[in-house]
Amino acid sequence: MSLLLIAKNRDLSSLKKALLEKDPNLDVEIWPRVENKERVNFAVCWNHPKHVLDSYPNLRAVSSLGAGVNHLLDDEALPENAKICRLITGSLKDQMAEYILNAITNYRLHISKYTDQKRTGKWEPHSSIPKKHAPIGIMGLGEMGTSVATLLLQHGYKVNSWSRSRKSIDGLQSFAGKEELSDFLQETKILINLLPLTDETDGILDLELFKQLKNPGYLINVGRGTHLVEEDLIYALDTEQLEGACLDVFVTEPLPENHPFWNRENIMITPHIAAITPAREAAEVIVENYKRALSGMELMFEVDREKGY
Amino acid sequence: MSLLLIAKNRDLSSLKKALLEKDPNLDVEIWPRVENKERVNFAVCWNHPKHVLDSYPNLRAVSSLGAGVNHLLDDEALPENAKICRLITGSLKDQMAEYILNAITNYRLHISKYTDQKRTGKWEPHSSIPKKHAPIGIMGLGEMGTSVATLLLQHGYKVNSWSRSRKSIDGLQSFAGKEELSDFLQETKILINLLPLTDETDGILDLELFKQLKNPGYLINVGRGTHLVEEDLIYALDTEQLEGACLDVFVTEPLPENHPFWNRENIMITPHIAAITPAREAAEVIVENYKRALSGMELMFEVDREKGY
Repeated sequence: MSLLLIAKNRDLSSLKKALLEKDPNLDVEIWPRVENKERVNFAVCWNHPKHVLDSYPNLRAVSSLGAGVNHLLDDEALPENAKICRLITGSLKDQMAEYILNAITNYRLHISKYTDQKRTGKWEPHSSIPKKHAPIGIMGLGEMGTSVATLLLQHGYKVNSWSRSRKSIDGLQSFAGKEELSDFLQETKILINLLPLTDETDGILDLELFKQLKNPGYLINVGRGTHLVEEDLIYALDTEQLEGACLDVFVTEPLPENHPFWNRENIMITPHIAAITPAREAAEVIVENYKRALSGMELMFEVDREKGY
Repeated sequence: MSLLLIAKNRDLSSLKKALLEKDPNLDVEIWPRVENKERVNFAVCWNHPKHVLDSYPNLRAVSSLGAGVNHLLDDEALPENAKICRLITGSLKDQMAEYILNAITNYRLHISKYTDQKRTGKWEPHSSIPKKHAPIGIMGLGEMGTSVATLLLQHGYKVNSWSRSRKSIDGLQSFAGKEELSDFLQETKILINLLPLTDETDGILDLELFKQLKNPGYLINVGRGTHLVEEDLIYALDTEQLEGACLDVFVTEPLPENHPFWNRENIMITPHIAAITPAREAAEVIVENYKRALSGMELMFEVDREKGY
């Protein structure tokens, strides 16, 4: 029995070390050097090559190395009866909540404007946007979304959420299903995308959606790059349907040097750093799920392959 | 009996309106148009001209229009038996805590670096600074400092404080008096100045102090401009004893166009916006203190003229 780590262009040695610290009896292999493919029961993948997974006949489960699983669901080589799970740690949720609170405060206090003014030595105060004028809408209320909503509610924000099924969190206004999307958007000024990437959510952040926000809206995308129709964001900024955006994920990463987003004053760009899983915390969840997979139990953060999340 | 508002170059009409909404029977005058100087019992001042206060023989108390009172204490024209108070509102404390939390997160997540990288289209992630490697030291633990400390403790930071007398807040390490300043600094990486401005604290943020921080330190000055020896900050940045600074107050405001701070990559500059008192909240405190002054009671946020805070 062995556990296989697959991630192109990524140093996996610290994760392997953390896994062995957690359980010294584990047999951990790092792709592409795999001694005996039949012994592999569990794989942990990030940006894995297509068709690599069909070489392992005894694969019981595959874990993403992050919160996203679309790279697994899209892979036709994934054995039909292998379970899929995402990797979510407490620290990941805390990091995401902290990143988003920070992005919202930077927007409300006009921190980017002051950074721009600094370049020309301009002293000009701007009235900060009161919290009551900045109702927040979170798309996607899974583990991450719930943690973000909880922190923002603690900080006195008005928080709406939109998800497939209705949620019950004290103080949160929950909208559910396609038929309530418009109502949700009309109650929202700062829109946070934390949806899983599925056929239904791909390209969901488009001009039609931006138009329905409390005008002008502000977008924070920390989901996946292709949730956003990038040319629609430019158009929405040009026509002042959006006031600005903070983006951590992009259709192409690294964001190409000649991409139009770089030159936009009102787009904040961070290089996919909102939530990075620390090796030690990742190891805890992976080892637990490896054991569960071997005993045929339900995994932590297991994904329904039909629903896609 | 009348209440006088004195503030150069500032529109006081919304404050007057808020005061009259709070108590329609008030007689509110705005300097320099004062009908009967003998009727003035209470003055609210911000950047008031020297020697203006000695024209009011029946002045019982003078309130600052903000948290700082050094402009009052330094004024020789202030009648000897007039009480002095600062103006602190719940919103002011919340704003300050929010500003500081935001400045700390921007530093830990390298948000300024990403803003700089954006100008050249550079995609380069930086590891964020873990909270446990960023112990915080708050100088001055009055109303503002306590509110800041409480929020930072809630967010899982290690928080030290330095004040004249020892404080007791769950989870906070309190240092007190000159003899414990060095110990406090050695336990601190991110230094927040919230001290009142007195003869003893004027120029306290100097090279000798920066040298004692956990190397390299980070400075957040939201106290008063002259707490900081500005040339020492430049020197400390040049010699990497400080990694950066976030400044909201300056010796000269507006900060002159040719000031060397503008061109420093690692200095964040905001134009004195960390905490702005909303007129309605200011009116509540002023009306209460006006009534207390008339009945000879102790004021809210009264300042000890000997101690200077």
